[in-house]
Amino acid sequence: VTDDRLPRRAALLGSGVIGGGWAARLLLSGVDVALYDPAPGAAETARAALERARRSWSRLTLVPPPAPGTLTLVETVAEAVAGAELVQESAPEREPLKLELLAQACEAAPADAIIASSTSGLLPSRISSEMAHPERFLVAHPFNPVYLLPLVELCGGSATSPETIERAASLYRALGMHPLVVRHEIDGFIADRLLEAVWREALWLVHDGVATAEEIDDALRYGPGLRWSTMGTFLIYRLAGGTAGMRHFMAQFGPTLQLPWTKLTDVPELDDGLLDTIVAQSDAQAAGRSIEELARIRDDCLVAVLRGLRGQAWGAGNDVAATERRWQRTAPAGSPADGLARAGDSLAGPGDGLLHLHEVIVGPDWIDYNGHMTEFRYLEVLADTTDVFLPLIGAGADYAASGSSYYTVETHIRHLGQARAGDRLTVSTQLLHHDPKRLHLFHEIRRADDDSPVASGEHMLLHVEMAAGRAVPAGAEVLAALDRIAASQRQLPRPDGAGRAIGGARSAAGSQRSGAV
Amino acid sequence: VTDDRLPRRAALLGSGVIGGGWAARLLLSGVDVALYDPAPGAAETARAALERARRSWSRLTLVPPPAPGTLTLVETVAEAVAGAELVQESAPEREPLKLELLAQACEAAPADAIIASSTSGLLPSRISSEMAHPERFLVAHPFNPVYLLPLVELCGGSATSPETIERAASLYRALGMHPLVVRHEIDGFIADRLLEAVWREALWLVHDGVATAEEIDDALRYGPGLRWSTMGTFLIYRLAGGTAGMRHFMAQFGPTLQLPWTKLTDVPELDDGLLDTIVAQSDAQAAGRSIEELARIRDDCLVAVLRGLRGQAWGAGNDVAATERRWQRTAPAGSPADGLARAGDSLAGPGDGLLHLHEVIVGPDWIDYNGHMTEFRYLEVLADTTDVFLPLIGAGADYAASGSSYYTVETHIRHLGQARAGDRLTVSTQLLHHDPKRLHLFHEIRRADDDSPVASGEHMLLHVEMAAGRAVPAGAEVLAALDRIAASQRQLPRPDGAGRAIGGARSAAGSQRSGAV
Repeated sequence: VTDDRLPRRAALLGSGVIGGGWAARLLLSGVDVALYDPAPGAAETARAALERARRSWSRLTLVPPPAPGTLTLVETVAEAVAGAELVQESAPEREPLKLELLAQACEAAPADAIIASSTSGLLPSRISSEMAHPERFLVAHPFNPVYLLPLVELCGGSATSPETIERAASLYRALGMHPLVVRHEIDGFIADRLLEAVWREALWLVHDGVATAEEIDDALRYGPGLRWSTMGTFLIYRLAGGTAGMRHFMAQFGPTLQLPWTKLTDVPELDDGLLDTIVAQSDAQAAGRSIEELARIRDDCLVAVLRGLRGQAWGAGNDVAATERRWQRTAPAGSPADGLARAGDSLAGPGDGLLHLHEVIVGPDWIDYNGHMTEFRYLEVLADTTDVFLPLIGAGADYAASGSSYYTVETHIRHLGQARAGDRLTVSTQLLHHDPKRLHLFHEIRRADDDSPVASGEHMLLHVEMAAGRAVPAGAEVLAALDRIAASQRQLPRPDGAGRAIGGARSAAGSQRSGAV
Repeated sequence: VTDDRLPRRAALLGSGVIGGGWAARLLLSGVDVALYDPAPGAAETARAALERARRSWSRLTLVPPPAPGTLTLVETVAEAVAGAELVQESAPEREPLKLELLAQACEAAPADAIIASSTSGLLPSRISSEMAHPERFLVAHPFNPVYLLPLVELCGGSATSPETIERAASLYRALGMHPLVVRHEIDGFIADRLLEAVWREALWLVHDGVATAEEIDDALRYGPGLRWSTMGTFLIYRLAGGTAGMRHFMAQFGPTLQLPWTKLTDVPELDDGLLDTIVAQSDAQAAGRSIEELARIRDDCLVAVLRGLRGQAWGAGNDVAATERRWQRTAPAGSPADGLARAGDSLAGPGDGLLHLHEVIVGPDWIDYNGHMTEFRYLEVLADTTDVFLPLIGAGADYAASGSSYYTVETHIRHLGQARAGDRLTVSTQLLHHDPKRLHLFHEIRRADDDSPVASGEHMLLHVEMAAGRAVPAGAEVLAALDRIAASQRQLPRPDGAGRAIGGARSAAGSQRSGAV
């Protein structure tokens, strides 16, 4: 966990696709937002983006997000920037408009405010030229959808101070983003030059009748696009060169590439005929799907890709992991009592004496083709709960690093109801028994909506000296923490279903086989 | 499932990164391959690719692959193409070499063979100009790694017959690929024109000192690259235009783009200085990681991305799903006996009377930070085994579609040993009991290497009428299949550990808490 800190308050100048995306990312991160946009429908755009973002992030992480910030609509730039630590301008790409908005914002904003423009095409030195304090201005260029893609290009103008770039990078990191500092002020920064290069070739292919919009899109998403979600062009080509290295690759492929290079660099004219062709092919490709529907598909796929990369601890997946760490309710190392107190604060149960340590929203990728939660995910939820319990008693990572840890030796799961995509599941925990070497836990998963039971998990854990692989007594602090929990749960009855063997009384509901395919 | 059919046999002319990738995809799909490559180390390249592919596919699908094809190394082109239905040339990109190889292959290959070149840069009409039968030639241009990326661009020359393109598309689909027919013979086909455009801009950015190789790669993989794994440029821009449609987008962004276009289309000269810079930056970016290590990271990430997209039933994920359907050992609808016989053939156990239905290699994403398999993955392996068992007794997807299915109601897991990344796990299954409504299974997971037990799973399933949510008797054919299995396992003793409740005798080994973090 870094010491990056959220902006205390943000001002958005301009809504639309980009401004709405900023609103969603900021609000979801817990930042209060004031939005100035004289255009009709600006608030609706921001709220729609927030809904999409909420849905996406609830499935991107298993950690519930913090309480969202408040969105306030304001009538003037001065109202928007009052008290803001971050001002983000996302107005249409017209230089005079940006010049005026940024100058106004600079005049009215607090002295410590960072003022950023989302422009993808205009140079920072030019659009900041009428600001009284251009040293605290920079371009912070995000990518649509802003609430999911981590990349934000930071580019200062000639007057921008290094401290502004540094502070901005920290604020954006705290929002779960991946700042890339563009060290030279150029048209198109970095990513948009690459995007434009692709766009130019794509227009040529359509212009020449070589391929349709859909064929060109397929040429990206079934091949190179899959790779680019994991590695950029240079690393990919290094790999294509094999063990002989990058110089070998350049020697081998440089000359081959030279010929087409000289041929494909003209610029097609965007006349009415080409425009009509592109519009017709784009309509055909969308096949009647609305923008809203396409945006949902895009977001669901991006969530799946990001989640996959998070599992690999690679690239953009690391930014998701950083956000999770930021959001996670973990006990401070070595202070079981503090941890227990904090867990009690933040996860206060309904006063039933049980521990309430974990909750999770069922994502669509946890669902089988019949709409039910896949069988093994039940154990994932139960095991994640144990993973919150252990740091609570001082047996978390620091403890394991000292050589001992709790191992699960036996698990008994009863399926009591169905869980479906979007369900919020809560888990309650009872400590059934503990002795120096053993830990016997009983978790119950319920649907938050109607408090109906979904599954129970009974778990026997052994305290093991890892190198020797044998059970040994746990440390005194751990045992003391367990004693405290046991004392607090002294009056709880033994839960229904504990101690069962398979073949006893049966329940009526079950988890449908995920793979009855 | 389509009626696409695998080639009866394939000839590869040339190994290397691309040829090795073809070998892996073909062998893993169950096709016998003859490889001709006079260069030293060609067989090792192919075998290394096969190992990487096997590892990747075992985690990309839950369906065990078919028995792999046989790789034969041959000394001549004529030997290679003998009996082949698909000849794939992947020699270095030198026109005279390809002209000769293809002409030789055409002379010696069976009359019905399709002859394809993997070239990314040479025109089909030219390289097929010395073939006696250019009508059965085409370019089939794949992307590295060939065994994971589904895209293959098909482009005929002036003499190529439409039937050749059609048959080739069908053969490549049967190999799990996504053929994209390029309708006009142009340099760079479609994808490579887009790739070259990016590469050209990237070289400019390095040349001008604007950004390093790593910064450029980051500009792709944290932003646009993530999107391109799910949608191409046209659909992405349609979304960026919002509800106003594609014409609105073009009107809004066309003029802004015009300015940089005219500026960024020169071609940088690839002189020694630029080469040195690129090589140094590429080395810095690799940070000492070997090509093998980078390839493993790339493949693991691609698997995660593809698996994510498969869960969304979108884009390249659909190609994975199609392969799974092709690989799935499902009983033909309504013939449980056939299914059982087939499973018996392909999964013959060590004659111990148990069913041997499932095996899996433990992937690195299944491992916790201590190097042990994460707790819930044990249930994933167990549940996957049940998912193979059910179609075997005629209770697979077709059966569920009729309204009834088996639901798991209770599960008991004992941890008996550790599994680590790379371990091959095999699961044996005993039917403990069945009656018209109940099914009581006992699975045991062992490490293939030393046959040591890793975990056991005892599972009670109920046969449920899904709409009503109540237990009903299973169909007669399902019960008959269960009777047959029970009869074949009549002499097996009740497994050690069945019928246990937690708190009974304990085992010494366990599954380390994945999340003691």
